[in-house]
Amino acid sequence: MSANALDALIEALRRLPGVGVRSASRMAFHLLQHDRAGAQVLAQALQQAATRITHCTLCHTFTENEMCATCLDPQRDRSKLCVVETPADQAAVERTAAFRGLYFVLMGKLSPLDGIGPKDIGLAKLFERATDGVVQEVILATNFTAEGEATAHVIGEALRARGLNVTRLARGVPAGSELEYVDLGTIAHAMVDRR
Amino acid sequence: MSANALDALIEALRRLPGVGVRSASRMAFHLLQHDRAGAQVLAQALQQAATRITHCTLCHTFTENEMCATCLDPQRDRSKLCVVETPADQAAVERTAAFRGLYFVLMGKLSPLDGIGPKDIGLAKLFERATDGVVQEVILATNFTAEGEATAHVIGEALRARGLNVTRLARGVPAGSELEYVDLGTIAHAMVDRR
Repeated sequence: MSANALDALIEALRRLPGVGVRSASRMAFHLLQHDRAGAQVLAQALQQAATRITHCTLCHTFTENEMCATCLDPQRDRSKLCVVETPADQAAVERTAAFRGLYFVLMGKLSPLDGIGPKDIGLAKLFERATDGVVQEVILATNFTAEGEATAHVIGEALRARGLNVTRLARGVPAGSELEYVDLGTIAHAMVDRR
Repeated sequence: MSANALDALIEALRRLPGVGVRSASRMAFHLLQHDRAGAQVLAQALQQAATRITHCTLCHTFTENEMCATCLDPQRDRSKLCVVETPADQAAVERTAAFRGLYFVLMGKLSPLDGIGPKDIGLAKLFERATDGVVQEVILATNFTAEGEATAHVIGEALRARGLNVTRLARGVPAGSELEYVDLGTIAHAMVDRR
């Protein structure tokens, strides 16, 4: 820890993703000069979040209780399980209101280069969950990046081998886009998956 | 304050300058999933900075003591006073090792549109300090933006009226730059100030 409180604060702010030394200095200056109350609020929020938030025993997302509100909701269709990478992805799917099943949040993706293997994203737990007899369909909604696709492939193979019905979000042209500006891979996929 | 700790954390992170809801979510996710220790360190650093850091009675910069280390340094030339906008600007001047005098840190700049007037940047204190009989030269090193120039102008006029020797950082072509790519205003200034 740095000798003085200002350097310590700048150093600590740099632990946030995407924040370099200049942004960190600007943030520290802003908080100290214009928003000391904000600094206190943030300190308390960090403290409470770091100590209170754990993972839902069923879907692995962040929650302050043993199970998250979604998993506890009796209105949900327990035969459908949607696999997403992060709580933010889950929130995106939720906002569509197109899915009323349950989720499994990987809290990451397979990424051998970063040393993130099947254990780190709780695949054993997902397989156990998916084969509980209640789940009929697993919908893979990992991102359509190289790592997200690889993660979906690994999970898909493993679950199909266990006799489960596995689907993947459709690939295609995004709503509102003009073909001229859509990348070739997307158009090719949309052509193959035409309906 | 939000009902759950995660939303409260995201809300608090948005008080940082340049952080929107997406960045805040990403930061919260990163801290909770990969760096809980970092969250605790940051919470503590914020807490300590917000309670311990005050302003130097002499130069107005951030310090944990009554006076900052620069103002206390007996090696400094007390006849020269360099006026800068922020501690970051002061640090930039310090890194050049071209100045051995003392500083006055405005902690802002005149900005009528944002409601920042002479009181907010401690001009009365600066005038008092500059006319203490020890200071022989005041060097205006505010930024070369519209607001920084206006601030320098106001301070310069007031101090010259008090009979002080006031200088401004030289304007000119930056080191390493090609004339072709330098803006016209800068070249015009460099031409007028040629030596």
